[in-house]
Amino acid sequence: MSGASGKPDWLVGQDILTVKQFDAEQLADIFERTDRMRDIVRQRGGTDILARRVLAALFYEPSTRTSASFIAAMERLGGSVIPITQGVQFSSVSKGESLPDTIRTLEQYADVIVLRHPLVGSASEAAEAASVPVLNAGDGAGEHPTQALLDLYTIRDELGRLDGLKIAMVGDLRFGRTVHSLTRLLSKYDVELSFVSPEILRLPLDLMNEARDAGLKVRETYSVADVIDQVDVLYMTRVQKERFTDLEQYEELKGFYVITPELMRQARRDMIVMHPLPRVGEIAPEVDDDPRAAYFRQVKNGMYVRMALLAGVLGKE
Amino acid sequence: MSGASGKPDWLVGQDILTVKQFDAEQLADIFERTDRMRDIVRQRGGTDILARRVLAALFYEPSTRTSASFIAAMERLGGSVIPITQGVQFSSVSKGESLPDTIRTLEQYADVIVLRHPLVGSASEAAEAASVPVLNAGDGAGEHPTQALLDLYTIRDELGRLDGLKIAMVGDLRFGRTVHSLTRLLSKYDVELSFVSPEILRLPLDLMNEARDAGLKVRETYSVADVIDQVDVLYMTRVQKERFTDLEQYEELKGFYVITPELMRQARRDMIVMHPLPRVGEIAPEVDDDPRAAYFRQVKNGMYVRMALLAGVLGKE
Amino acid sequence: MSGASGKPDWLVGQDILTVKQFDAEQLADIFERTDRMRDIVRQRGGTDILARRVLAALFYEPSTRTSASFIAAMERLGGSVIPITQGVQFSSVSKGESLPDTIRTLEQYADVIVLRHPLVGSASEAAEAASVPVLNAGDGAGEHPTQALLDLYTIRDELGRLDGLKIAMVGDLRFGRTVHSLTRLLSKYDVELSFVSPEILRLPLDLMNEARDAGLKVRETYSVADVIDQVDVLYMTRVQKERFTDLEQYEELKGFYVITPELMRQARRDMIVMHPLPRVGEIAPEVDDDPRAAYFRQVKNGMYVRMALLAGVLGKE
Repeated sequence: MSGASGKPDWLVGQDILTVKQFDAEQLADIFERTDRMRDIVRQRGGTDILARRVLAALFYEPSTRTSASFIAAMERLGGSVIPITQGVQFSSVSKGESLPDTIRTLEQYADVIVLRHPLVGSASEAAEAASVPVLNAGDGAGEHPTQALLDLYTIRDELGRLDGLKIAMVGDLRFGRTVHSLTRLLSKYDVELSFVSPEILRLPLDLMNEARDAGLKVRETYSVADVIDQVDVLYMTRVQKERFTDLEQYEELKGFYVITPELMRQARRDMIVMHPLPRVGEIAPEVDDDPRAAYFRQVKNGMYVRMALLAGVLGKE
Repeated sequence: MSGASGKPDWLVGQDILTVKQFDAEQLADIFERTDRMRDIVRQRGGTDILARRVLAALFYEPSTRTSASFIAAMERLGGSVIPITQGVQFSSVSKGESLPDTIRTLEQYADVIVLRHPLVGSASEAAEAASVPVLNAGDGAGEHPTQALLDLYTIRDELGRLDGLKIAMVGDLRFGRTVHSLTRLLSKYDVELSFVSPEILRLPLDLMNEARDAGLKVRETYSVADVIDQVDVLYMTRVQKERFTDLEQYEELKGFYVITPELMRQARRDMIVMHPLPRVGEIAPEVDDDPRAAYFRQVKNGMYVRMALLAGVLGKE
Repeated sequence: MSGASGKPDWLVGQDILTVKQFDAEQLADIFERTDRMRDIVRQRGGTDILARRVLAALFYEPSTRTSASFIAAMERLGGSVIPITQGVQFSSVSKGESLPDTIRTLEQYADVIVLRHPLVGSASEAAEAASVPVLNAGDGAGEHPTQALLDLYTIRDELGRLDGLKIAMVGDLRFGRTVHSLTRLLSKYDVELSFVSPEILRLPLDLMNEARDAGLKVRETYSVADVIDQVDVLYMTRVQKERFTDLEQYEELKGFYVITPELMRQARRDMIVMHPLPRVGEIAPEVDDDPRAAYFRQVKNGMYVRMALLAGVLGKE
């Protein structure tokens, strides 16, 4: 399989398991492919390059948002989907069957498998068993690479560049899988990172060190107000009540991590607000009408990125 | 977007939320479109006018019948479906996320959204949030407009006209959403309505007055036997045991609302029996072979009507 | 509808309910069609002969494996699917509605219905109600004809013939639906059958007699080791702990029914190991790399057989 350049296409047949697998050149290539997918959808709604190709969407935990995005991506490429997106736990797939057996069964029917699984490492285990490409749609506290890719694509698409940007991550930085993966990806670029969280939800030390080792300028703070006037990107996440043993502390803190129209008045005019969604109060709905609110455009980019990856791993561009 | 006549197509981009939104001319137009869809399915099984278009079928409560009808309609138009039809309550869509946020997420993936929701007013709330058309597939005790449209289409299709007909609604007229919507639609025509129900399940007064104010001749009675020999349409609904506090009363009454071959002998030869289904005893299975039993043809008309609406709101005719 | 020969095509419009409905000539025809489907998938991924055709996949019990196979089959034929594969028990389909009513509803939307149901005889009941073809995807302890067909096809495909083969069925021969159906099918050929099971899980007498009456040479034994060096086909099934009241007996016996690389060393070089899957220990994963391990190829054949049947009953070849 070769690209337009005559070189073999690096993406064909690849599994998409972790953000760590991509170098900057590959990321740039994925984003170019994503641009093309966006153009196709805008101009014609979709294409049929994946006609007669079948995706098995195997979701061991429900995630309507992610499964809908992959399903739409496959359908807009002209492909078909076997949706195994709900209740897998009750079905024959899990009648004591091992994950490798389930995967080896599904690859008889499908040309590509998207897997969501509650256990870290499941995606790698599946990829090892499979002879078709496996796309990791989240494996527990592990990775969710397509989310990180769509986040990075959104920054680049909205602001026209990655290098030189000031980016703040806000909220639950300790457990937030999306923040971890995005931080890793951003470490490949020349960016300044601010981490804004309550003390007990600070970014894990290893990730902090990874970013520093990559030469990034990083800082930490407790309040969005400290950074709002400087940043190009404000990446919001949920601060979940369940993380706190001291509920008074939660009540005291949560207001520090809510974006309001008032707060947005202090922000730069060309910055953007992102959120992996769903939100449960971190961004006031009144902010939605602000052109800097990029989170729904971010959702749409998820579909474009997944289209690029599905077409790419199946060698159809 | 314009129709064959050069006039802009009134249906393009519309939400379908309530039967109240249509005037008689628009209803006639929908039925003409429905006729064309029926012809297409009969002749070729379907078409591909909605190729590369995606429907998100978002069902917060299970309704296999309605979701299957919408899915079949979209597929026979050549479009694709994101089925979110089961277990939504367990999934990320409802992780405390507001309905508008869910809708604004799905519209990034889909060109049109069909929504079933247990709460009255949900469809309007969704439509307000959405920039793509929203079709109400039932919002609690509220509306189920496509059911009412298919009911009206069936009467017109089976009997060749609406004006001049005598129509009896039978069963639970108090809580029956389909009866309410159909009554509203029929008020636009010159029909005679009979309402047949137990005392405690009579049609709500406001609906009765609406029909009277529209100039319709209406009457109420307790027994199907009173009207069976006069009507053109017998529209049956379930009388649910749960509605009765006095079970003796239920046992005593229920026989008044069951259609049998014996009863059908008293009916006119050119009348029809309808039912929104599922039935649980209101119509004896022996009646199914009677050519006047129109309820399964009614089901099929549902698919045709939904094809007409989906193609219409997406501007493809 | 006629085939290439000008003769009417016997498969058009047929229900697929039981293996008993096929004679040897029809089986041969199904397998030829299956060969062609395999070639199409290998060469082009699929076809579009069922474009604008809709399959309703109605699964009253979850069976991801079987539903995924039918869905993939329909999609690779260019057709569409209404997936009603999970949670049917909670949905309107089962709001006290009779199976015939559900079927008569779905046939308004779909051109063919695949039914999985926990009760024996459901598939026949559905077929009687339906005017479209019904394919039995398992009705309780009854039949699962497409599984038996794919099993038989696999033997023929792997070994090039059926007559003259020595075939051992191993494990739970008493309750194993697949074993029963396959035994019935094999009785039409000149094969030798060995039944290998614990005493309490022996093949029911009526099936044993059926095979004998058909003129087959049959034998029974307790251990795989007794037959492994002679057979052309080793058909493994699960021995479920739940079948035993005496757990000591289970622990003592289960090892007799596990295939290991050591055991495979005693097997013929051109034999095959089959399993309907899922397995839970009857075949050691180390056996998977053995070219004689045919069980995942068997899974793929399931898709091909179902493609042949779906195309056949819908008159598209």
